[in-house]
Amino acid sequence: MRYDPKTFRGLTFHDALPAFRDGSDSPRVYLERCLEVIEAREPVLQALVATDIEGAREAADASAERWRTGRPLSPVDGMPVGIKDLLETRTMPTEMGCKAYRGNFPKRDNAAVAALREAGALILAKTVTSELGGAHPGPTTNPFDPARTPGGSSSGSAAAVAARMLPAAIGSQVGGSIVRPAGYCGNIALKPSRGAVNRGERQASSQSVNGVHANSIEDMWRVAAEIAKRAGGDPGHRGLSGPADPPPAEKPGRLLALEGAGWSMIDDTSKEAFHSLLESVEAAGVSVLRPADDPALAALDAELMGASAVCYAIIGWESRWLYRSLADQGPDAISFRARKSLEAAEAMSVADYYAALAGREAAQAAWARALEIVDGALMLSCPGPAHLWAGDRPGEPPTARPTGDAVFNTPASILFAPAVSMPLMGVGGLPLGAQVMGAEGADARMTGFARWMLEAVEPVVIG
Amino acid sequence: MRYDPKTFRGLTFHDALPAFRDGSDSPRVYLERCLEVIEAREPVLQALVATDIEGAREAADASAERWRTGRPLSPVDGMPVGIKDLLETRTMPTEMGCKAYRGNFPKRDNAAVAALREAGALILAKTVTSELGGAHPGPTTNPFDPARTPGGSSSGSAAAVAARMLPAAIGSQVGGSIVRPAGYCGNIALKPSRGAVNRGERQASSQSVNGVHANSIEDMWRVAAEIAKRAGGDPGHRGLSGPADPPPAEKPGRLLALEGAGWSMIDDTSKEAFHSLLESVEAAGVSVLRPADDPALAALDAELMGASAVCYAIIGWESRWLYRSLADQGPDAISFRARKSLEAAEAMSVADYYAALAGREAAQAAWARALEIVDGALMLSCPGPAHLWAGDRPGEPPTARPTGDAVFNTPASILFAPAVSMPLMGVGGLPLGAQVMGAEGADARMTGFARWMLEAVEPVVIG
Repeated sequence: MRYDPKTFRGLTFHDALPAFRDGSDSPRVYLERCLEVIEAREPVLQALVATDIEGAREAADASAERWRTGRPLSPVDGMPVGIKDLLETRTMPTEMGCKAYRGNFPKRDNAAVAALREAGALILAKTVTSELGGAHPGPTTNPFDPARTPGGSSSGSAAAVAARMLPAAIGSQVGGSIVRPAGYCGNIALKPSRGAVNRGERQASSQSVNGVHANSIEDMWRVAAEIAKRAGGDPGHRGLSGPADPPPAEKPGRLLALEGAGWSMIDDTSKEAFHSLLESVEAAGVSVLRPADDPALAALDAELMGASAVCYAIIGWESRWLYRSLADQGPDAISFRARKSLEAAEAMSVADYYAALAGREAAQAAWARALEIVDGALMLSCPGPAHLWAGDRPGEPPTARPTGDAVFNTPASILFAPAVSMPLMGVGGLPLGAQVMGAEGADARMTGFARWMLEAVEPVVIG
Repeated sequence: MRYDPKTFRGLTFHDALPAFRDGSDSPRVYLERCLEVIEAREPVLQALVATDIEGAREAADASAERWRTGRPLSPVDGMPVGIKDLLETRTMPTEMGCKAYRGNFPKRDNAAVAALREAGALILAKTVTSELGGAHPGPTTNPFDPARTPGGSSSGSAAAVAARMLPAAIGSQVGGSIVRPAGYCGNIALKPSRGAVNRGERQASSQSVNGVHANSIEDMWRVAAEIAKRAGGDPGHRGLSGPADPPPAEKPGRLLALEGAGWSMIDDTSKEAFHSLLESVEAAGVSVLRPADDPALAALDAELMGASAVCYAIIGWESRWLYRSLADQGPDAISFRARKSLEAAEAMSVADYYAALAGREAAQAAWARALEIVDGALMLSCPGPAHLWAGDRPGEPPTARPTGDAVFNTPASILFAPAVSMPLMGVGGLPLGAQVMGAEGADARMTGFARWMLEAVEPVVIG
């Protein structure tokens, strides 16, 4: 299970379409292959909290018939997908990794789920989320080493996609919940611009987004585009802009390399891997700038040093009423990690929240100035390869962030920036992702950049 | 019960505070007076869906003790308030006027409700809403004539406040749901700027707001300000700006008089009343402009002729996933009026929605240009005095909008404009409100304008 980005090929869907058309394969047969992998790997991976196998089989048969007669509903017709267990699904419970939601089964489809069903996708599974998308982990293990974290909070989506259980899954990010697990699990993943993909009933945060974990640019883009085509963006926002077909590869002109506030936390091998990646990107003809190259870039870099503080203040404040209502349900309704977040949030005043909003706006202004100089930024997706994690140990202080620190992710989150995570590095036999991030609304362009990098840049393997 | 705006005095709270301080009155005694009125009037008015009398009494006793010892939590400490039954409350069910939500009791406080409790207010009742805030009416009758509608969707809030059951109640508006019932019931009411008052769990609409029905500017402003002080604005928004104390009266310099798309629907007496009001405002020294006075004003007027179409397209699209999930629960889960809205919404494409957003933005741009010429606009709150309504009649086609048309309200809704409804007219013994609306964020200024008008302009009585 040693991971090598040069040889690893994850399960994809888009390249099965010709065989669906000529009858040599079908969505039902494709689904059965996924189910075999799930059966084999789920006992250790623990990526799924619920499945709807019969519903998926029925939908797969209907899809097979559409492909056979040349009338698929969309390019994702027949695709088995996983839905992060924060989003409501009509056919499976929505327990959010939280005891207070045990048995919660509202029998409603989130707008994105409804859109995927309309497009013919098979809503096969709910994937594990850390509790309420926060710090407290679920049971999922890393697909390349079960002693390690898959990252979070979209733990199950990232792991299931990496383990060939599913070609794509929906994740969500408010701090670091799509890009970090994607980086730890070797996914190709899109954290869209703020508002680009309708969050349905989950509108409570001013910066969260729903995105896609996949193993190819094609699948990643098509899932996002087919949702946006039917459900649009968040209320008041235009959805994902760009073509329905995956954007072609586009070579960036100038990219800003950001080491960021997380640099001091990571191991030397990961630093070496990122520096090697930057060299490869430069060798392929992209101009790679550093913060020191321009005052506007240095100002952005300095502003983003505070991204995590700004991000956690905003998240804490915006979720405090929900967390309070859950905490009041009983001593075990939410974890001690969630209680700690709540405590911090309830110590905030409105003025503290507005100060955090001002911090976010200052970072966005610095980003806008930087984007006059560069086309985007390149950064690690996660703080090194996935770390060992075997649960809290009695008698020892609990790990604050068992699924990893979001320090490499809070910048894109507070900038409302689209980010695409790319599996371009292997460190010690584990994936280490890098992300390219750009201007709000430039989701298609960042996808084109990522596609170019995946095609043109030699992956880095160290250790 | 004939209504005369010159003599009608609704129940207020702010002027009870000196007596709370000197011990000649107390929040508990004040509450008991409200309960007596409720007992007397509720059988006909039907404004309340639930009450928490014991909880309110307990909270009133605690408040009385705070006033006695000179340590009130806020100027609304001890105020009995009603909460529109769309917002969640920890102590009462939230049934939203909808069969699908019968028995729904999430035991959570909406952020505004939590803020009011923190400020010491008594969460006494849930007030009737039309179904899901839409067209299908609840049982509430007009406090000045039980054969007439109280307006909607904040029917119970408007009626209870007018009937002296409560000094203030929370309403909400996405199309016309605060200002129209306020106009029909003679309330002083604030429909805040978009984002100004945290909607808590109700973030699904890009233009809905929570606001306040009251009988005085002081109570109206304080309730809004005490919420914003503790719960802030919507996620990502700064809350209500302005002083904690009610803004002083401010004489507007120039106001635009808008007859609007609803003018052709109303009776001649209401037209005469509005024209008389405009004359009084002019006589008091305000320069009243008409659309014909300037091309920018004419352009705004023309743009707003389409406000209702834009508004309903946006509302329909943004609620279609929720409505669909409810409709799927069974044939009686939602009303035929809600099904009809759903049908229209499901016939829309994403492009239709984006066209409606573009229409909203065009109206906002026209409004911004108009606001370079005038300080705000003056318009009727509702299409004439409340009409007769005795329920749908078997064998006859059902009334499309039993609680009245929102044609005078959709402009402020799509403009994200703060609007204050003022009980400045009496027509045929019934209230007829007028609203002043201004720039997004100018809630305090519009409140100051309304205060000035209520103090300086002679109310109009006709018929």
